[in-house]
Order: sequence, then structure tokens, then C-alpha cells
Amino acid sequence: MPEDAIRAGETTAGKMRTVRDVCVIGLGLIGGSLLRAASAVGREAWGATASEADAAAAAADGFDACTDVAAALRRAADSDAMVVLAVPLTGLDEVLRQVREYAPNCLLTDVTSVKSAVLASVRAFTPEARFVGGHPMAGTTESGWRAGNAALFGGAAWMLGVEEETDLAAWADVARLALDIGAHVVPLSAAAHDEAVARISHLPHLLAAVLATIGAQGGPLAMALAAGSYTDGTRVASTRPDLVRAMTEGNREALLPVLDDALGRLGAMRGSLASTGGLAATITAGHEGSLVFARAREATPTGVRLSLSAPDAREGLRALGERGGRITALTDDDTAIGEVA
Amino acid sequence: MPEDAIRAGETTAGKMRTVRDVCVIGLGLIGGSLLRAASAVGREAWGATASEADAAAAAADGFDACTDVAAALRRAADSDAMVVLAVPLTGLDEVLRQVREYAPNCLLTDVTSVKSAVLASVRAFTPEARFVGGHPMAGTTESGWRAGNAALFGGAAWMLGVEEETDLAAWADVARLALDIGAHVVPLSAAAHDEAVARISHLPHLLAAVLATIGAQGGPLAMALAAGSYTDGTRVASTRPDLVRAMTEGNREALLPVLDDALGRLGAMRGSLASTGGLAATITAGHEGSLVFARAREATPTGVRLSLSAPDAREGLRALGERGGRITALTDDDTAIGEVA
Repeated sequence: MPEDAIRAGETTAGKMRTVRDVCVIGLGLIGGSLLRAASAVGREAWGATASEADAAAAAADGFDACTDVAAALRRAADSDAMVVLAVPLTGLDEVLRQVREYAPNCLLTDVTSVKSAVLASVRAFTPEARFVGGHPMAGTTESGWRAGNAALFGGAAWMLGVEEETDLAAWADVARLALDIGAHVVPLSAAAHDEAVARISHLPHLLAAVLATIGAQGGPLAMALAAGSYTDGTRVASTRPDLVRAMTEGNREALLPVLDDALGRLGAMRGSLASTGGLAATITAGHEGSLVFARAREATPTGVRLSLSAPDAREGLRALGERGGRITALTDDDTAIGEVA
Repeated sequence: MPEDAIRAGETTAGKMRTVRDVCVIGLGLIGGSLLRAASAVGREAWGATASEADAAAAAADGFDACTDVAAALRRAADSDAMVVLAVPLTGLDEVLRQVREYAPNCLLTDVTSVKSAVLASVRAFTPEARFVGGHPMAGTTESGWRAGNAALFGGAAWMLGVEEETDLAAWADVARLALDIGAHVVPLSAAAHDEAVARISHLPHLLAAVLATIGAQGGPLAMALAAGSYTDGTRVASTRPDLVRAMTEGNREALLPVLDDALGRLGAMRGSLASTGGLAATITAGHEGSLVFARAREATPTGVRLSLSAPDAREGLRALGERGGRITALTDDDTAIGEVA
């Protein structure tokens, strides 16, 4: 998009965009928390979900929520609201069909934990949509409306997708919502996101599942002795299985090489224990990895500024995210204020 | 040992045993916490360690601590104290040599995280010792005197070994110390303990090491996106590597089949993801495992009583532990009060 077009968009529609209404489809942990959080910061916000239980619970808590997804989307179309898809990947295509029918021109984003698969569905079902993929890194092992809260996104990383075709004015609108409700924004391509979450989210879930299985097979004795290392290592195994399946199976391409890496390392470790009896390589590498993580969280960041109207803004945003950086604010003239270690 | 002998021991020495002095060799996290906890409940307690830093820190905190292990053991011999070995497995043989030289007749216990290897060392170096193996399940990722505290064992499971040759009067003495400082006692054979901890402690440490390695290799981006599942899954990877090596390498025989089980499950999962794309079997089994753990912790226990002077007391104790049971008190006539779900 030429720089002038973006600037014109800012000038004529910038004010409207910053207070865009929010329509949330899906009112589980993430969608439900988003409806609460958007309402809490003064946005006009409503939600719809196929789950009668979640809709009833949200309405009972005083939120504008129903089970009529079509009506919610028509209302979004009427007020040019931002539509947030907060359904599991397995339910996405059906909702996209409704978006195409009832709100085809709305700004569209999502909060699904895999991004390439969502991008493929959006391109297939709603190719004309101004779509910005998103993923707030703010899950818990709980699910459903009752598990959510308005503060869930406080301090969380919220990945927002930057592809070649991404409309940066739309991107800024979604980023403002994420920033308004306390998150910081990590700009990334879908592919870079999916590779990273295979390592730091999907592999942890699968290792936790294997550990919980092997622990339980040790019977009451093993359960009685289980302490901190087991409790921590298995915590996410209590997540609803269909949600874990949706994210791991939906990220198959990025997950397979990561699983192969894990299998290779575990196999080498097993061989070493059986032959020399030594586990130094595995344990030392793991300890160094834990230091890398600790240092990353403690590093002193450097401030960066990035104009979304610059011709290479997409490259700049992705480079910031890939270096572990984040955006913490957006100025009125769409300059991203960020930091990177 | 004939029943009469045990009863005689109780009658003539029972009172002395319950207030036996405590000599702790090794003043790291566990040994240091034990010296504090034993002192806090009114025991005469002192410690020695080869670590000048730990000895100085303990002395600065007002405890009776030094680097002269031989002197500490001689004092234990003089007062017929209980000697607690709180050194890593790799340092055990050297300390056992000193025990044989300076305190050969003292009641001896340990707090090492593997038990068959300790039993083999004790049988080799101090075959005449009245030895009761022990393992408080109360580690943290920290180490050294400064990391410890008197409350570390509150609510923790403290495994105490019951072998064919175990002197149950000595066993009761050690159990009373563990109970006095807030732990509950899990009676088990060394073999049953080692099989269980391979599942619920050593495998978690190794999976955490592999996860921390693979996560860190994702670079700053992966570290920036890492949230709850990664933080929990890698927490114990920050434990001091030599301590993790000592416990995992020292439990090689029990650990190998558990590692093979993990490799088999991960390999089958990888194959399933690559072929059908499905991970249902892995994820469902893990979820069921997490429910088994949750139910075990929430189960309502039934009370049990077990006389340590019964002819089948050893079998009864081990059976209690293997069923996930625990001992919560010992009466003056050496009846164990326990519970099992």
C-alpha cells in the first residue's frame, strides 16, 4: 500500500479506528476475557458463542452476549466493528463462512494459538477480509467463560501477524486494542510464530502429557511421592484435551521437526545412560537453556521507534519481533514505540 | 529381630531414642534445613560440611556448624546421636569411610534422592551400621545453606527405607525426627522408591532439560513468547547440574525402563502426527493421568494402625507405602498411626 493511502486513512479514519467497537465470537477463556477487558476500557463490546452455557454465564455477569452469531456479526457490520474470532481452530471455518455472509467488510482478527492454518482458512473463506492474525500468550489450564477475567492479558505477549498483504492501518487498530487491555504486541509472520510456539508451547504440552501418563502408571505410590518437579512438569496436561489437540495438530508442519529434535536428544541421552552412564551433556545443556531464558527475562531493553507508514514498515516490525522485541505503545500518528534487548 | 528384643529396647532406651541428638553431615539445602528444623523442635543438633561457605553461613546464622566432619562424627559417637548424611550421592562413600572410623555404632540415616545405590554403599563401607535410608521429597531448584529453611519439610513426604535387615527401633527413631519437623513418613523398600522417583522426579528433570535446550535454540523470539507452559515445564532445569546428575545417574537401573517408556510414547506420537495427523491418544492419556494425580491428592484417606513390634511389621509398612499410604504419628509404644486412600 502506498504511503499516501495509509496517511490518508489515518487522517480521515484514525479517530474512529482507535475507538472501534469490538465483536467477539467465542466466549471461552480467551474470548470471554477479551469481552470483559474491552468493556472495562470503555469499548462498546458484545459477544456471541455457540455454547449456551458460556452465553448464559456471560449474560448473567452483565455482558452483552448471546448464542446468535449471525446477529452479532450483522451488528458488527452495521457499526464497522472489529470482529475477533475466539473459537478453537477446529471451529474456525464454520465461523468464517458466517463472517463472509454477515460481516464481509469488517476488520477481522483472531486469538488462535496457531497462525499459518488460520491464515490459510481466512484466505480460502474470506479472501477479501482485512485480516490481522493474533495470538495472546495468556492461556491457563482452565477453559470456558467462568475461567476468564478482564486482567488476563495484563503483561502478556500478544503476537500480531505481519504478512506481505497485511493492512497496517488495520494492524494498528488491533494493536491498540491489545495495548489498551494491558498486553504488549509482538509483530511476527505466521510462520515465525508457529515455529516458536511449537518449541515453547506445543512441545511443553506434549511432554506434560507423556509425563502425566508415565507418572500415573506408577500407581498410588508414585502419586504419593510426586512433588514439585512432577506437579510443574504435568500442570498443563490438565488442559481440555480438544483444545490441546486443536493447537498441536493444527501446527503439524512446525511441530514435527521440533518433535524430532526432542526424540533425537532423548534417544542420545538414553544411549549415553545405558553405555557410559553419563547424562552430563543433556543436563548441562538444559541448565544453560534455563539461563538463556532467565537472562532473556532480565535483560535491559533498548527503546525503538518504528513508523507504520515507512515503506519497509512490515520488514521492520517482523525484524523487531524476531529479535525478541515488543511494541508497548502506538502514537496517534501510528509510530510504534517498542523495545528490544 | 525377635519381638522381645524390640520391646526391651523400647522399655530401656525408648525415652532416650525419642530425644536423640542429631548430627548432620552436609549443610546444603536439605542438610541445612534439617539442622534448622531439628534445632527448632528442641533437639541438640550440630552439623559439619566440606563446604567452607556453607559452614560459615550456618555458623553466622547461629548454628553449631564447622568444616571438621571427623570432629562432628566423634561428638555423635560420644552422645550416641543420630547421624544424618546429607551429601550428594557422589560424595557419600568418602563420608561413609569417616563414619566407619569415627562413629561406627551410631544410628545412621541419609536424605539422598536415590536409595538402592546408597544401600549398596552402606553395605560396602559400613556393613555393621544400624542404617535407615531416607528421602524427604522437599527439594527446590535452589541449593546451599542459604536456600534452606526450618519449614522446608512441612507437609512433605519423607520416604524411610524398610529392608529385610532394617532395625525397626532405629527406624522409629528416624521416623520420629521426620514427624517432629512436620513431614509424613512413607515406608518403602529402596527398590520401590527408586522405581517411583524415576517416574515422578528423574524423568521430569530430564524432560525439563530437553525442553529448556530446545526452547533456548528458538532464540530471542521463542524466549519472548514463552509463557506458563514453558516456565512450568522448564523450572527444574535451573537446578544445579551436578545434583541432577548425581540423582539421575545414580538411579540408572530404574531410570532406563522409564526413559524407554517415554521414548516409545514420544515416538508413537511422532508417527501418528506425521501419518494421520492425530494426537488424540497421547493427549487423552495425559489428561487422564492428570486426573489420576488430582484424585490421588483429593482422596479421603482411611486411618490405619500398625504395630512396629508385629512379626510382619516390615511387610505391613512396605505395603502401606506401596498403596500410596503414609504414617502421620508414632505412639510411645511404637504403633504407627497412618492413613491410606
